[in-house]
Amino acid sequence: MSKEVKHLNLNSISSPDVVKTLSYKELDALSADIKEEIIKEVALHGGHLSSNLGSTDSIISMLRVFDPKKDKIVFDVGHQCYAYKILTGRPLFSLREKDGVSGFQNRDESPYDPYSGGHSSTSISIVSGMAYARDLNGDSYETIAYIGDASIANASALEGLNYAAASGHKVIIVLNDNEKGISASKGALAKLFKEFSTSTFYIKKEELSSKKINIFRKAWINLSFFLRNLFKKYFRLNVFKCFSYKCIGPVDGHNIKKMEKAFKKAKKCPSSVVVYLKTIKGKGYKYAEEDEEGLYHGITSLDIKTGNTGDNCEKKTLLWEDIYSKLVGEELKRNKDAVLISSAMQLGSGLFPVFNSYPERCIDVGIEEGHALLFGAGLSLSGKHPIISIYSSFLQRAYDQALHDLARLSLSSTLLIDHAGLVGREGESHQGIYDEAFLYTIPNMVISFASSVEEAEFLFKDSITYKGPYAIRYPKEVVRDYHVVGKKYEFGKWIEVNAAPSDTALITYGPIIYTLLHLFISEKKNVKVINALYQAPLDTNCLTYLLNMKKIIIYTPYATKEGFALHVVDALNQLGYKGEISYVCLPTSFIGQAKVEEQMEMAHVTPYDVLKLL
Amino acid sequence: MSKEVKHLNLNSISSPDVVKTLSYKELDALSADIKEEIIKEVALHGGHLSSNLGSTDSIISMLRVFDPKKDKIVFDVGHQCYAYKILTGRPLFSLREKDGVSGFQNRDESPYDPYSGGHSSTSISIVSGMAYARDLNGDSYETIAYIGDASIANASALEGLNYAAASGHKVIIVLNDNEKGISASKGALAKLFKEFSTSTFYIKKEELSSKKINIFRKAWINLSFFLRNLFKKYFRLNVFKCFSYKCIGPVDGHNIKKMEKAFKKAKKCPSSVVVYLKTIKGKGYKYAEEDEEGLYHGITSLDIKTGNTGDNCEKKTLLWEDIYSKLVGEELKRNKDAVLISSAMQLGSGLFPVFNSYPERCIDVGIEEGHALLFGAGLSLSGKHPIISIYSSFLQRAYDQALHDLARLSLSSTLLIDHAGLVGREGESHQGIYDEAFLYTIPNMVISFASSVEEAEFLFKDSITYKGPYAIRYPKEVVRDYHVVGKKYEFGKWIEVNAAPSDTALITYGPIIYTLLHLFISEKKNVKVINALYQAPLDTNCLTYLLNMKKIIIYTPYATKEGFALHVVDALNQLGYKGEISYVCLPTSFIGQAKVEEQMEMAHVTPYDVLKLL
Repeated sequence: MSKEVKHLNLNSISSPDVVKTLSYKELDALSADIKEEIIKEVALHGGHLSSNLGSTDSIISMLRVFDPKKDKIVFDVGHQCYAYKILTGRPLFSLREKDGVSGFQNRDESPYDPYSGGHSSTSISIVSGMAYARDLNGDSYETIAYIGDASIANASALEGLNYAAASGHKVIIVLNDNEKGISASKGALAKLFKEFSTSTFYIKKEELSSKKINIFRKAWINLSFFLRNLFKKYFRLNVFKCFSYKCIGPVDGHNIKKMEKAFKKAKKCPSSVVVYLKTIKGKGYKYAEEDEEGLYHGITSLDIKTGNTGDNCEKKTLLWEDIYSKLVGEELKRNKDAVLISSAMQLGSGLFPVFNSYPERCIDVGIEEGHALLFGAGLSLSGKHPIISIYSSFLQRAYDQALHDLARLSLSSTLLIDHAGLVGREGESHQGIYDEAFLYTIPNMVISFASSVEEAEFLFKDSITYKGPYAIRYPKEVVRDYHVVGKKYEFGKWIEVNAAPSDTALITYGPIIYTLLHLFISEKKNVKVINALYQAPLDTNCLTYLLNMKKIIIYTPYATKEGFALHVVDALNQLGYKGEISYVCLPTSFIGQAKVEEQMEMAHVTPYDVLKLL
Repeated sequence: MSKEVKHLNLNSISSPDVVKTLSYKELDALSADIKEEIIKEVALHGGHLSSNLGSTDSIISMLRVFDPKKDKIVFDVGHQCYAYKILTGRPLFSLREKDGVSGFQNRDESPYDPYSGGHSSTSISIVSGMAYARDLNGDSYETIAYIGDASIANASALEGLNYAAASGHKVIIVLNDNEKGISASKGALAKLFKEFSTSTFYIKKEELSSKKINIFRKAWINLSFFLRNLFKKYFRLNVFKCFSYKCIGPVDGHNIKKMEKAFKKAKKCPSSVVVYLKTIKGKGYKYAEEDEEGLYHGITSLDIKTGNTGDNCEKKTLLWEDIYSKLVGEELKRNKDAVLISSAMQLGSGLFPVFNSYPERCIDVGIEEGHALLFGAGLSLSGKHPIISIYSSFLQRAYDQALHDLARLSLSSTLLIDHAGLVGREGESHQGIYDEAFLYTIPNMVISFASSVEEAEFLFKDSITYKGPYAIRYPKEVVRDYHVVGKKYEFGKWIEVNAAPSDTALITYGPIIYTLLHLFISEKKNVKVINALYQAPLDTNCLTYLLNMKKIIIYTPYATKEGFALHVVDALNQLGYKGEISYVCLPTSFIGQAKVEEQMEMAHVTPYDVLKLL
């Protein structure tokens, strides 16, 4: 920290207007302080690191020009607004903790947040609605969507872009292009942005400043760039101009003064406008700046000095994603018709090793969940077997494709649904607790969940030969494997895990069985545990076998009751079961950020909640 | 019909190769014959008229160049492939009838159909998958997406466009631009296409042929067009070029020879290419050509001479869409904060009168269901009340937006869900039977269904003041109103329709109640009928009141059991109900094309199926 300039106390900022009072030197100091604070708090609580470092300067600059008390600044996803939080009076002490500051924008948290984000690519449509409302009311504030280069290539953002351009209601789109998304961005737009940003003044400046060159050379570069840019400015292929947006930039996304000028221009512009910022993801933290794989995009903890993240360390323990990643790799090796599709979650789902080994049959389609499923449908229609890796929460975006295409056409396909169940600190928008229920509303859909590595192997192999869509859900959890000796797996067949002579049966599934078995032993509870590794279809033979039980408990800590649990209740009724039925399921509600264990307690779905019923 | 040229017998075409053997004169005759046949069969069975007349010439031309035995021709939606069906040996006698020829492409129907469409905008992603598979196998066929100008502006198509351009796996996109979609197309792309098509050779030709002009004038026009086009060819803003597609066209979509040339060029092209066709929707049928409102897009029947459609006539009877359209109009009049959003279904949902009366607060966003909900969310966040009109089947495309945005943020909004329940001849892809169940998986979602006009009025008004998303489903049915005297409606409260002293209760909802009451009277059945106008939340007071019933039947002919029915079963269990529960619901399966009455019989959900249980 330099000593000449004034430093703000980041923990006691009462109004974002303060940035309007500072000199550019002071702003640079502020930027450095904020970045330092972000690194410190993310190291403690986990969170999005690189994107917040990359966005800090532009946020400061936006707050010089716009007034968040009346202008609506919507951060797409909302994962990159930490600097905005600090500058609007929300220090990051309790970041992502239970009842603490959210990792996203959150309108319940602050009047400065006009929206509560979470999923990507919604911002343009959201601010379009706000702009429409503004114009109906005859008000005059700005509506601003701040969006990254990966998020803009998604269905929702593209629909928003298409609409907002022609609507006649002005929005400002701030495109933060770091060419990376979570890791490298995909698709035509990504390519386009690359061309766009490497053919302009931005590069000129880089070139001029990075080389020691004489004055003639300098003049020549200046002239040639002037001509090139003049040409490109008017004639270059620019998708935003095609859509009839005014375009400002590229602007150096770390030069507060230049951005301020661009934002002022955007504010004056009477119609919808794109401000194109070229930023460096991870700016200000060496390890993050150099990161090509997205390791510092979202982390759980960090050793600031060494750059070791909690995620690197946890890698020493085995996660469920590692199990499935290995299985996918083996399948790609064995079966030349197997093709892996990921929707921007190569890293998140531990798929880098597979992508590296089989690049020609591993496709990352970017944040395009609908396309991922349709593309998979096209592959399946051509005799390939698509393995579609997707987070539970993001599969919500492809409900129609799952129903209308994969299921309706009975297409062979494996859906590897990662982050199924509670996800912890990401909170409400990212919970993977709804997919079991919504997949259950789709005809022909197989739904499964392994409790052991052996089961995972069976389910995965089974899915490859099955004639139809086959979902395998798995949690964001460390694998604690248990062995079930001599079991024979079969499609649709449940397994009696323990041969306890009991008049109470517990029907459940997933790795929680490991914990339950230990608990029942230590608590000396006699209960027949049924491992329903298939949630759909139901094993009615097994249910018939259970009809003489006095009590049946259904336990689904990975899903709401709408899916498996209510179907078991229904089937037992249909079979004429007369005993007592109860269930312990996640509530059909939104569950806020906290540790997974805390969320289980909040939701009353711990193994101890099951114990109470025995 | 001209007598000099050979005419094919359209009912006995054994191979599409036949078009390769005909002269252009014969092809024109073929085109005219096919159009005549299409008009005739659509008049009888209903179906898509205008789009099939518009696509006929291009289909003939495609079949001159491509070989559908190996090339994969995917029609987006698939509603415009009637000529393709005829030319691949599927006469239209049984169009859209039970067990007859489908109104869409259908791979179960013919080896010439590589895909079974239905929902819009999937084709580009689908053929991308096919192209990928082809290249993995080292095969060499073409994969062709034939898509309209309205469908290409949708989320899925835009994702597909973004992917296919950069993937390195060649696809051919045939863009059929009639500037209309179902009615007029929306958004920036629509605007762009308009500029694109009015600035090129296509127009030149029109101008030259339409005027009697002297040779100098002709030369001047030729030269000026040459220069203009030269300029535009290289520099014009073209979104497809932005995405790095090769572009061919615009080509006159009714000139078989010219299109043939374009398709041959596309075939030779080594990378992904867009062939841009300018067509006239309804070509060859005067009434359809002149139709600006989309009245001839999809029809139920037609008097060919007068142009009267079944839909025009049915308008004399009242449909549920008319009830809601009227309610929306009254609300817009009363409440300046109410805003209507439609997703390309102004006509389908009978909303033209409202759009005409309140143009500034009625927005048709085109086929962009996700955007429709997000845009509505933006409006709601700004104090407006969005009324979002959408077909049940298309709401499947906005599951995430309903959950992540409307429900998670508890945003005041009315979802008017049209075509809820069985839809008849559109078949599998268009059934409105899943939304109740998938909406039930979303926290905070109110789900309702009116059985009478009075109820519709209450529910609609109730939705306006409710703090959260409020779904009102309604069927594609004629209103047969019944009066319930002196009822007081209340949020969440069910209604005992008849005070029959009975130990059997029937819990149901919707206009079917009218039929049931008449049937029970005529059959002298004593049964307590409960009108559960709210499916979510459940009226547990009413359920408690029913606990002394011997038998409770749940009847939902508008939805699968996953939603309301299983939740009633669950609630009765929770309340300790000891009697018999049964339900009559739509099966969670895909139900093929037939009349609604036939589908109800196939699915065993007629009132007589209920009667059997009494």
